[in-house]
Amino acid sequence: MKSAVEELEAKGKAAKAASRRMAYLPTDVKNDALHKVADGLLARKDELLAANKIDFAEAQASGMSAAMLDRLMLSSTRLDSIAHDVLAVAALADPVGEVFDMRTLPNGLQVGKKRVPLGVIGAIYESRPNVTIDISCLCLKSGNAIILRGGKEAINSNKALAGVVQDASIRAGVPDGAVQLVESTERTLVNHMLGMVGVIDLIIPRGGAELIRFVSENAGMPVVAGGVGVCHTYVDKSADVNEAVAIAFNAKVQRPTVCNALDTLLVHADIAGRYLPLVAAEWAKAGVEMHCDERALSILKSEPSLKLVPATDQDWGKEFLSLVAAVKVVNSLDEALEHIERYGSGHSEAIVTEEYKPAMRFLNEVDAACVYVNASTRFTDGGQFGLGAEVGISTQKFHARGPLGVKELTTYKWIIFGSGQVRP
Amino acid sequence: MKSAVEELEAKGKAAKAASRRMAYLPTDVKNDALHKVADGLLARKDELLAANKIDFAEAQASGMSAAMLDRLMLSSTRLDSIAHDVLAVAALADPVGEVFDMRTLPNGLQVGKKRVPLGVIGAIYESRPNVTIDISCLCLKSGNAIILRGGKEAINSNKALAGVVQDASIRAGVPDGAVQLVESTERTLVNHMLGMVGVIDLIIPRGGAELIRFVSENAGMPVVAGGVGVCHTYVDKSADVNEAVAIAFNAKVQRPTVCNALDTLLVHADIAGRYLPLVAAEWAKAGVEMHCDERALSILKSEPSLKLVPATDQDWGKEFLSLVAAVKVVNSLDEALEHIERYGSGHSEAIVTEEYKPAMRFLNEVDAACVYVNASTRFTDGGQFGLGAEVGISTQKFHARGPLGVKELTTYKWIIFGSGQVRP
Repeated sequence: MKSAVEELEAKGKAAKAASRRMAYLPTDVKNDALHKVADGLLARKDELLAANKIDFAEAQASGMSAAMLDRLMLSSTRLDSIAHDVLAVAALADPVGEVFDMRTLPNGLQVGKKRVPLGVIGAIYESRPNVTIDISCLCLKSGNAIILRGGKEAINSNKALAGVVQDASIRAGVPDGAVQLVESTERTLVNHMLGMVGVIDLIIPRGGAELIRFVSENAGMPVVAGGVGVCHTYVDKSADVNEAVAIAFNAKVQRPTVCNALDTLLVHADIAGRYLPLVAAEWAKAGVEMHCDERALSILKSEPSLKLVPATDQDWGKEFLSLVAAVKVVNSLDEALEHIERYGSGHSEAIVTEEYKPAMRFLNEVDAACVYVNASTRFTDGGQFGLGAEVGISTQKFHARGPLGVKELTTYKWIIFGSGQVRP
Repeated sequence: MKSAVEELEAKGKAAKAASRRMAYLPTDVKNDALHKVADGLLARKDELLAANKIDFAEAQASGMSAAMLDRLMLSSTRLDSIAHDVLAVAALADPVGEVFDMRTLPNGLQVGKKRVPLGVIGAIYESRPNVTIDISCLCLKSGNAIILRGGKEAINSNKALAGVVQDASIRAGVPDGAVQLVESTERTLVNHMLGMVGVIDLIIPRGGAELIRFVSENAGMPVVAGGVGVCHTYVDKSADVNEAVAIAFNAKVQRPTVCNALDTLLVHADIAGRYLPLVAAEWAKAGVEMHCDERALSILKSEPSLKLVPATDQDWGKEFLSLVAAVKVVNSLDEALEHIERYGSGHSEAIVTEEYKPAMRFLNEVDAACVYVNASTRFTDGGQFGLGAEVGISTQKFHARGPLGVKELTTYKWIIFGSGQVRP
């Protein structure tokens, strides 16, 4: 019997072989596979829900938290929604095959770039079984083979879901081996996978900060790392006060547990006296706790309805992921820019201003994946940006930055059309 | 006194601080700095040649090979040529600041991408002091700060050359700290540099295969690794025989010591009898030794003037970097594609054919940085492809592939112009 490592190696080899053929697979075949995945998710609901029930019961018995159980659970409605998302991926434009930057050189050589898939993507993820469908469909669309390594707690769900994708793919004419699921739940397999340089071209970790850090530090191949967002909104002295209240409210409250939510509110001293009581009153209705610097505190302290806490050094640069916001009064745009440079995580940063110069300086000088003028940082999302589905949000600078769609799962090759040219 | 590590850390910090301001430095300032570098190289020739003389004498005394000594040596003519190249970089378009993919979303948000520098580039290189000018000027142009770590053998030359770049940059108004030279030649500093994640955004190793491997394996940040090229030229049965001779001759002979030179010639069986004697006769005049498979050998063996060696398994997938070529007769395009897939290094691959279908299949199916129809693989070069200067040639798939110019030293940030939008 094969060891788990041998099995993983074999899956890697099969994925690699398939990926070569995936690179020039017609769009029709890929879209047909995606439609068949959506159909399969609906037609095989009973089987999928039965598999999920096993995982759910085991997780429940082992004492998994309610929040995690909710992430693990599939339902008929959730399968409908997942199938709907698959059709949305099918409807995206195929990023592969685009030829760009094509020029004719003085010697007659025609030189350009052609967009091609990256090759083999490795996905390492936790609990949520919808990631199995999500990532494998994005890989199918972008012509990449995929090796899925889901969490132990969702293994039965993942087997069933990957089965749907594999069946659909084969029936549509996608090369056998393009979609691989690592079935062994041995923990050391992750380490082995991270060493499969030359087989896996990119690793996508999806899960908690711990998983992402482990993968980033140990992978031999490129990793799309993101997830951490320490996001600032700076309210300039020239801001429209009502607009600034609405933006900060949305950025903090609309979904506080995600990476693009507001963490620190920076307010210009000239507007703080008018602005802070208004935003604090709105936030208070939603239960936001404010960790304020001294000046913010002195402005707000007379309001007994507010949850105010004196800020400590640990509050700056902290990702709260909850209804907590750090608040600081600054003397100038420069001070705001310095604060963001020092404490930001390069995710999403916003300025609220009615003046042109501060807007342009903020856009130019802030070094982050997404820089906003007069909008909520909550828009940092592949769907919101019009990319269709997203693989993740990168806070790296290399290859791609911010929300990653199917195009970001591709690279290019140079193609050169000659007529006998030799180099002089 | 500061330790070498503390000094490196301080230089990293200074480079990082400078890089923030470099990101929005006007093109005029950058080009002015480059012109001043070119002027300085000419005006300070005596000083530069004197510094180089010290390195050269020490290297000679230590028994450095003639080839390496030649790489180390500066001369008045070489400085002229380096200054000329700097002006060519000045003449390139500024890649930074380009705004692309800008769209207005249904909610009125204007979302697009703006090209920005990567940040801080680390260069680790050996012997050739011109790399000091070369890389620092490409970084200046692309708005990146640079930390240079040249070889011990060229330390005096590198100090003098980096001094020219630093003086010119400061006088032009480039932020102080943008160009850093690591002056200590302690070997462990390289390891420390490779761990400076969060300070150095990209490492560029320039030198032998050993250096590149070491850097790739030990760097915590992205590395532009390339340099190794196992390049095939496949002569299809439909090839124009004379064109195929000229292309293979050029690819092997024009400069055999570089990564884009031909290593293996694959010839379709239907044309081998006509083609091989012709290319072998031309190659023989240039002194090329042919490592032939059995079928090639049986076609060529009656020619006493040829240097023929029976090929062994080690010849396939070998980068010869000399006047040696492996030669194999194949039965079909498929066999050629399989051979390239198995033995190629993803650098440059060519087909010579007069037929449309083999040309298109080769372009589609070969997975390499550069794929050619009817031209010599020797064209794989930033200058030849019209990029101006090049930082290197990448055989990776992530971020950029093939010759890397100034644009490939950049990334983008998303910029979002709102008018008060919040996420529903």
